[in-house]
Amino acid sequence: MRYAVIGVGGVGGYYGGKLARIGKDVHFLFHSDYEYVLEHGLRVDSCDGDFLLPHVNAYERAADMPQCDVVLVALKTVNEQLLKELLPPLLKDDTLVVLIQNGVGVEQDVQQWFPDVALAAGLAFICSAKAGPGHVNHQCYGSINIGNFSCPDPRRVDAVLDDLHAAGIEAANVEYHEARWKKAVWNMPFNGLTVTLDTQTDQLLANPATERLVRDMMMEVVGAARALGVPHVDEPFVEKMMAMTRVMTPYSPSMKLDFDFHRPMEIEYIYSRPIAIARQAGFHMAKLEMLEQQLRFLMKKELK
Amino acid sequence: MRYAVIGVGGVGGYYGGKLARIGKDVHFLFHSDYEYVLEHGLRVDSCDGDFLLPHVNAYERAADMPQCDVVLVALKTVNEQLLKELLPPLLKDDTLVVLIQNGVGVEQDVQQWFPDVALAAGLAFICSAKAGPGHVNHQCYGSINIGNFSCPDPRRVDAVLDDLHAAGIEAANVEYHEARWKKAVWNMPFNGLTVTLDTQTDQLLANPATERLVRDMMMEVVGAARALGVPHVDEPFVEKMMAMTRVMTPYSPSMKLDFDFHRPMEIEYIYSRPIAIARQAGFHMAKLEMLEQQLRFLMKKELK
Repeated sequence: MRYAVIGVGGVGGYYGGKLARIGKDVHFLFHSDYEYVLEHGLRVDSCDGDFLLPHVNAYERAADMPQCDVVLVALKTVNEQLLKELLPPLLKDDTLVVLIQNGVGVEQDVQQWFPDVALAAGLAFICSAKAGPGHVNHQCYGSINIGNFSCPDPRRVDAVLDDLHAAGIEAANVEYHEARWKKAVWNMPFNGLTVTLDTQTDQLLANPATERLVRDMMMEVVGAARALGVPHVDEPFVEKMMAMTRVMTPYSPSMKLDFDFHRPMEIEYIYSRPIAIARQAGFHMAKLEMLEQQLRFLMKKELK
Repeated sequence: MRYAVIGVGGVGGYYGGKLARIGKDVHFLFHSDYEYVLEHGLRVDSCDGDFLLPHVNAYERAADMPQCDVVLVALKTVNEQLLKELLPPLLKDDTLVVLIQNGVGVEQDVQQWFPDVALAAGLAFICSAKAGPGHVNHQCYGSINIGNFSCPDPRRVDAVLDDLHAAGIEAANVEYHEARWKKAVWNMPFNGLTVTLDTQTDQLLANPATERLVRDMMMEVVGAARALGVPHVDEPFVEKMMAMTRVMTPYSPSMKLDFDFHRPMEIEYIYSRPIAIARQAGFHMAKLEMLEQQLRFLMKKELK
């Protein structure tokens, strides 16, 4: 199977790098790092063991890339529109596009742009960030859940899982809606609150007021999932996420890093879309809507 | 009529100073400014005309003050407990205590400590702050609404209004609950949001996301007032407050100043109390509760 990786940051660089390392045919689309990677290769510092890929199939333009069986999209969703240009050269009849992205609603948008393409969601549970040109720093975790969205042949999803397993990655096949909304349980409180309160996960849980606020927000996601008929997004899962976060190293979610480094935040797919979808189903995520409103204010203030 | 002023900051210094200026018998309780005022008097720089009171009845301890007909309390509510010590020396059988303070619930607490005392609420619409020792800077506005809470003889309230009018202050007699909750319509969104988003009133209304958030929060106060049966706190009043704020000079509410100057914030009476009262009446102020949770986090963070 031939792989393409679009968006070679902490996430795309790690999963693509792990596949390339075991000899899979992986083609990476680089942006500003292209020249650097040609010369120095792709370096992954990982808690599971550092490695360097001296020669990777590196491209500067999607138009130069070959058609692929699997496209791993690990772009920030703030650049989602770019897929309209970047995907077509890579697609053949049976390409599976895996959107390893945050939030809710990305598959629906991409499917609208490419009605016939087979899509799956990738939910990465990983702490990994770009450390420099062609250089990924993978700190901890690393498992990925794949949820089939519109792939008519489930064996194509299984084949990707097999390759990920072969590369030493913990990967599981999960129900699409459940996977997206379960991830939202953690993502929605922590991404925005670490930004608005300029803090990290551990501090939010150490203070009784924000510990309650985080749980209130997680329960709003549960309420939304319930209204949408998505199963297994429930109070026990909320308690599991709270307990998991309590034992995590103090953590700055991706939105906090984006804000601190003056990059655009993924407000649209992490907040606006799920809030709108829940509202259509009759559930009002009041506190998460307020967080969205605060983030939109901070984003504009930041741009000034 | 003999007046006492407890809490001689931007508010107490202004109203007390205006009364003393026209020859009313006003007795001021000072804290750190006592020595300075003895020597230099009390200075009020005001948009209505500056004035200096070279000799005021200044005290350092409440125990040294005479019994008074009217006590104007302009303490920050974070110091509410002090009233247990400060009020008794000033009280006689028919003393009227006017609580010129922010929030909801202060009269209920003070009444519990002093079951027989006649209380009224004072709602000041004023931009005024302490500029230095014995020095008040009154920037604009200045009207005050008085709402009778437990004064058996309404003429005692009218007498205070007469004196305020004589001193050149716009003052009105208003229904107690309506007055407190109407003030909450403005206070609850703007005090906390200017803190959590580090901004001023004009910026909150200039951004569409926070303009909606401010209105959402005002409507939560309307919902609470409705659940409590408080009249005239309605959508037209919300629109009036929005319009009024839009034409105001960019403004930092008192809580923002308190936060910026590392002073305790009046979270208890401006947020926790009205939110709890509304909840008991069956109305959940979700976004304002979230603001309270964020403020409690910031307060603790600040203290570190």
